[in-house]
Amino acid sequence: MEKIVSNRQVPAMNVLIVFAHPDRRSLNASLRDVAVEELEALGHAVEVSDLYAMAWKSAVDGADFPAIDPKARLKVAAASGDAFAADALTDDVKAEQAKLLRADVLILQFPLWWFTMPAILKGWVDRVYAYGFAYGVGEHNDQRWGDRYGEGTLAGKRAMLIVTTGGWREHYSPSGINGPIDDLLFPINHGILHYSGYTVLPPFVTYRVDRLDDAGFAQAAAALRERMRTLESTQPIPFRRQNGGDYLIPSLELRPGLEATGVSGFSLHLKQVE
Amino acid sequence: MEKIVSNRQVPAMNVLIVFAHPDRRSLNASLRDVAVEELEALGHAVEVSDLYAMAWKSAVDGADFPAIDPKARLKVAAASGDAFAADALTDDVKAEQAKLLRADVLILQFPLWWFTMPAILKGWVDRVYAYGFAYGVGEHNDQRWGDRYGEGTLAGKRAMLIVTTGGWREHYSPSGINGPIDDLLFPINHGILHYSGYTVLPPFVTYRVDRLDDAGFAQAAAALRERMRTLESTQPIPFRRQNGGDYLIPSLELRPGLEATGVSGFSLHLKQVE
Repeated sequence: MEKIVSNRQVPAMNVLIVFAHPDRRSLNASLRDVAVEELEALGHAVEVSDLYAMAWKSAVDGADFPAIDPKARLKVAAASGDAFAADALTDDVKAEQAKLLRADVLILQFPLWWFTMPAILKGWVDRVYAYGFAYGVGEHNDQRWGDRYGEGTLAGKRAMLIVTTGGWREHYSPSGINGPIDDLLFPINHGILHYSGYTVLPPFVTYRVDRLDDAGFAQAAAALRERMRTLESTQPIPFRRQNGGDYLIPSLELRPGLEATGVSGFSLHLKQVE
Repeated sequence: MEKIVSNRQVPAMNVLIVFAHPDRRSLNASLRDVAVEELEALGHAVEVSDLYAMAWKSAVDGADFPAIDPKARLKVAAASGDAFAADALTDDVKAEQAKLLRADVLILQFPLWWFTMPAILKGWVDRVYAYGFAYGVGEHNDQRWGDRYGEGTLAGKRAMLIVTTGGWREHYSPSGINGPIDDLLFPINHGILHYSGYTVLPPFVTYRVDRLDDAGFAQAAAALRERMRTLESTQPIPFRRQNGGDYLIPSLELRPGLEATGVSGFSLHLKQVE
């Protein structure tokens, strides 16, 4: 059978969606289906890692490193690095790493539980992001402190979050009680995605999802389709590169004078866009 | 047998340590033992939830709500609230909730993995922090938006984090590339602990733990013992109370005029201490 190719002028990409909701009838699953449908209509190839459907193992433990003596002390980073170097990680982890290497775009999709990702998705990060694969990559010297924060195994690829929350948009606004949504997601966008090399796009966040009616869903779906159509043209979050000269080495503190007036905290790590 | 009571003038408390490291020979486990020993020497009663030893289930799914038809759509907050109200949560979750109610002090202890807690501990929060227990508590009206952020089931108790990280202290400093440690821990300290009512103490953080020698361990252990001796007198993080007048209701944005000059992001939610 001939493959039907979209007539849109968009180069076909491989997209991986890592999905973390327990119910396939959830709003999250509906939004995932919208994203997949739009991406496939654009001619992209989509893989979905549905963590609940896969019964993903969340906890890092000795069973993750079958080559290591189970009676020996488990030093997680060392065990992870040894196993990655020897191609001795477990098959489930190796399969996810292969998907990441294949994908031009990574999407992590989840409901915001306690202001971050559900445990099952954190367990995907903890296990798949092995030493030598997503951290502990590259040389450390006077010029560079490893390949991370803008460099690394996954450099050249794009990533974004699709997030739902029961809370109101205002509660996540710059002065909202939960903290600004961009700051809450910073440890993921910067500390996980940018860290391992990804160019990170702004997140797609849907608020007050428990009260979302049909019109609200239609609006969210339309906005999500637009984000899927613009994966390649959307301006990324302008995180600073670690080894680009903005940080002192080895203290990795921002070089004095680069902070804009009144900027502190996580925002220091954004390039000031003119 | 007569119980031996410490002769220190400290009222005995119940302390719960929720511990999340896979190896009992780890630095984390050694620090936990130091904390337990010091607390018991002070006459306190200590319980430890060693999540790996308990083979704690991390992922929230239908099995958490045995009273609910497994074929019905799973709406997590609603299912959690119904199960809590009907005393129909699973036994492992009920046991942890009982420990929380018994404990005057809660300590969460973990290695910082990807700038937050390991999956197994996130799964403890996701499952134990049920609707009606740790969220969805209290009335919503013009004066108050539920019992949360300083009020709630766990109000009147103290909590703190004990954290280890391989990274350098400078990398977690105010301008360090990872982001300030207090901001990275804000979603836990504010969004989980303060949210459910706890008075939150500053975290105890040990850096560069992969390079910690005997002298470094002795120093960390001495500092941790001091923190255990001062649980009742340590000044808490001055998080604002939601219903104390500092926030507009229902937008829950900080009342204009309360921000100090130059303060933004998570720090807005700290009372300015004179």
